[in-house]
Amino acid sequence: MSKEAISLHKKLHGKIFVGSKVSPLSEDQIKNFYTPGVAAVCMEIVNDNKKKYDYTAKSNNVAVITDGTRILGLGNIGSDAALPVMEGKAMLYWEFGKVNAFPICLSVTKKHDIIKTIEAIAPVFGAINLEDIESPKVLDISNELEKRLDIPIFHDDRHGTAVIVLAALINSLKIVGKKIDEVKIVVLGAGSAGYCICQLLSYAGCKKITVLDSKGAIYKKRKGLNKYKQEIAKLSSGEKGSLEEVIAGSDVFIGVSGKSNILKKEMIRKMKKDPIVFALTNPVPEIDPAIAKKSGAKIVATGSYKYPNKVNNALVFPYLMRSILDLGIKKITMDVLYKTAVALSRTVPEKDLEVENIIPKIGDKKLQKYITNSLK
Amino acid sequence: MSKEAISLHKKLHGKIFVGSKVSPLSEDQIKNFYTPGVAAVCMEIVNDNKKKYDYTAKSNNVAVITDGTRILGLGNIGSDAALPVMEGKAMLYWEFGKVNAFPICLSVTKKHDIIKTIEAIAPVFGAINLEDIESPKVLDISNELEKRLDIPIFHDDRHGTAVIVLAALINSLKIVGKKIDEVKIVVLGAGSAGYCICQLLSYAGCKKITVLDSKGAIYKKRKGLNKYKQEIAKLSSGEKGSLEEVIAGSDVFIGVSGKSNILKKEMIRKMKKDPIVFALTNPVPEIDPAIAKKSGAKIVATGSYKYPNKVNNALVFPYLMRSILDLGIKKITMDVLYKTAVALSRTVPEKDLEVENIIPKIGDKKLQKYITNSLK
Repeated sequence: MSKEAISLHKKLHGKIFVGSKVSPLSEDQIKNFYTPGVAAVCMEIVNDNKKKYDYTAKSNNVAVITDGTRILGLGNIGSDAALPVMEGKAMLYWEFGKVNAFPICLSVTKKHDIIKTIEAIAPVFGAINLEDIESPKVLDISNELEKRLDIPIFHDDRHGTAVIVLAALINSLKIVGKKIDEVKIVVLGAGSAGYCICQLLSYAGCKKITVLDSKGAIYKKRKGLNKYKQEIAKLSSGEKGSLEEVIAGSDVFIGVSGKSNILKKEMIRKMKKDPIVFALTNPVPEIDPAIAKKSGAKIVATGSYKYPNKVNNALVFPYLMRSILDLGIKKITMDVLYKTAVALSRTVPEKDLEVENIIPKIGDKKLQKYITNSLK
Repeated sequence: MSKEAISLHKKLHGKIFVGSKVSPLSEDQIKNFYTPGVAAVCMEIVNDNKKKYDYTAKSNNVAVITDGTRILGLGNIGSDAALPVMEGKAMLYWEFGKVNAFPICLSVTKKHDIIKTIEAIAPVFGAINLEDIESPKVLDISNELEKRLDIPIFHDDRHGTAVIVLAALINSLKIVGKKIDEVKIVVLGAGSAGYCICQLLSYAGCKKITVLDSKGAIYKKRKGLNKYKQEIAKLSSGEKGSLEEVIAGSDVFIGVSGKSNILKKEMIRKMKKDPIVFALTNPVPEIDPAIAKKSGAKIVATGSYKYPNKVNNALVFPYLMRSILDLGIKKITMDVLYKTAVALSRTVPEKDLEVENIIPKIGDKKLQKYITNSLK
């Protein structure tokens, strides 16, 4: 697969292009779209600033911004090497949401510099998509940008992942016949994804959530917790211990740890009947799906397009962003995320739900319709 | 024309889009272009940074950057109102050069902030196009960015305008039978365009150039000249006086003043036989072409697509940028500009040269071929 991917990328020489909506373009049209005609359009915006949304692509432009510090599960590989991922994202944005997403890979990594840069380039965008920036820095950046800018700040690692996890969980629970307010859920990883998954699961009614970072379970009195982990602690069951300890008796494992092959088969064997295992780290998940199955997992999902049950935010961001832009949603709240997850889960009719069919395929036409309708 | 332009812009709702080169996109393709396949592509770049040019669109991405401080002849209208012009530019870049140009309208206007921002977003771009930023600030910015970045800094108001002016002048002089090293040229405007026109005309062999700013002719001992105007003074004939005074006995008038209707018919009457008048301010030129003709001008050109002889940098930037990117040109030198101007002038065969046909039409297929060949 690696060789094929590399050769395809070499052949394409870039996965996106910035095209003209009018093509071919006559001299007569240039007169209207460029000079002198465009001057009148500029003056319309000078006289009524809101018209920038009518006369330009701003209403459909999204910056996919990274500093390269936490690319997939690869870690801090820098902004140049991050480009293929950001372009891939832009490709999906166009293909499934008809959103103009442009990749912005930053040469700066300090919080203040990132905020200043995004603020400086904001006028041309209708929304910002923060991507693969290390946590908790990115959470501070996101919060600060929400205060400074009048466009929505979508943080896909956080918002997109939480939505797809909840949607997949809702359907998985239907299959195994368990209720969301009764199951015990273990979330491995307390970065952007783990943080928002914990918030959204709690919002959705989960009562027994344990979130672990590299030091083990997060609980209220644990020392040295940053403010986001303190929030996690408040929403958690209070359990302490290592992954091996807390996974015992759990119903659901959600891996967003950035660590490959960290979930062992013995751990799955300690889970309750019909374990649900979402091993979402990319490109290599927390456990190989075949091993997870062999160890007794009833439902297994990964974030990779290599396996069945693709619990990847690609199912979320193009569609949710389309709705955000079209409906003029200015803030990504828990309510927005919850409604999106429920809408997404409903695109798979109950009669079609199976252990290897818990979520829809990415091109499913119902996705846009259901999500937009749920947010209206 | 204004109404038509406004209604067309409203209908289009943005003149550009960011498309996917692969469409439709199957789940199988996502596996290669997104996760997990893309990770191998990232690692290739980690191991050999130059590969970013092979595997991504960087080699074809250009940022069209403005701070909105000097939009067309409209002045400082701000970055929101600047967007239609930048999008128009991106449209032309794609249509005629197949360049991925993305508009970046900045919310900052201070020199230092602009430099920092462009440096921060540079990784994704193969070149920068500075656009409609006030002078001399933009010249400082351009010089500083040339030092800090390893990608070419193209400044269209400067480079593009100088090229199209020289190309149009070469052909105009052929029509009136005058020689470039003998004519007296008056340049009205000493901003980015006037500065580079003066440099390039001088490089092309012109010996009698007088450049005026709002205070009159620029000469060596004039007080308070910034460093760019000092350079202009060194290349100038040394003449002093107002436009009315210095235009007497001149062969060529080049207006890049940003001031509409400032050239009077009496002034044209004071010029030598067969006056050449390039009134290039947009959207409304220094003199109405009909009035200029009536006053005795032999050849009249404007920068607007409303009149014949469209001496507009749109004839330059898409093609020159294509050549810059394809040939890996890292610095825009006088030699690059001179060769481009000569190549451009040659696209109109001598037998076809006429007072209303001094330059080619924008879609002319010879443009790309001639320019690229001249720069090889």
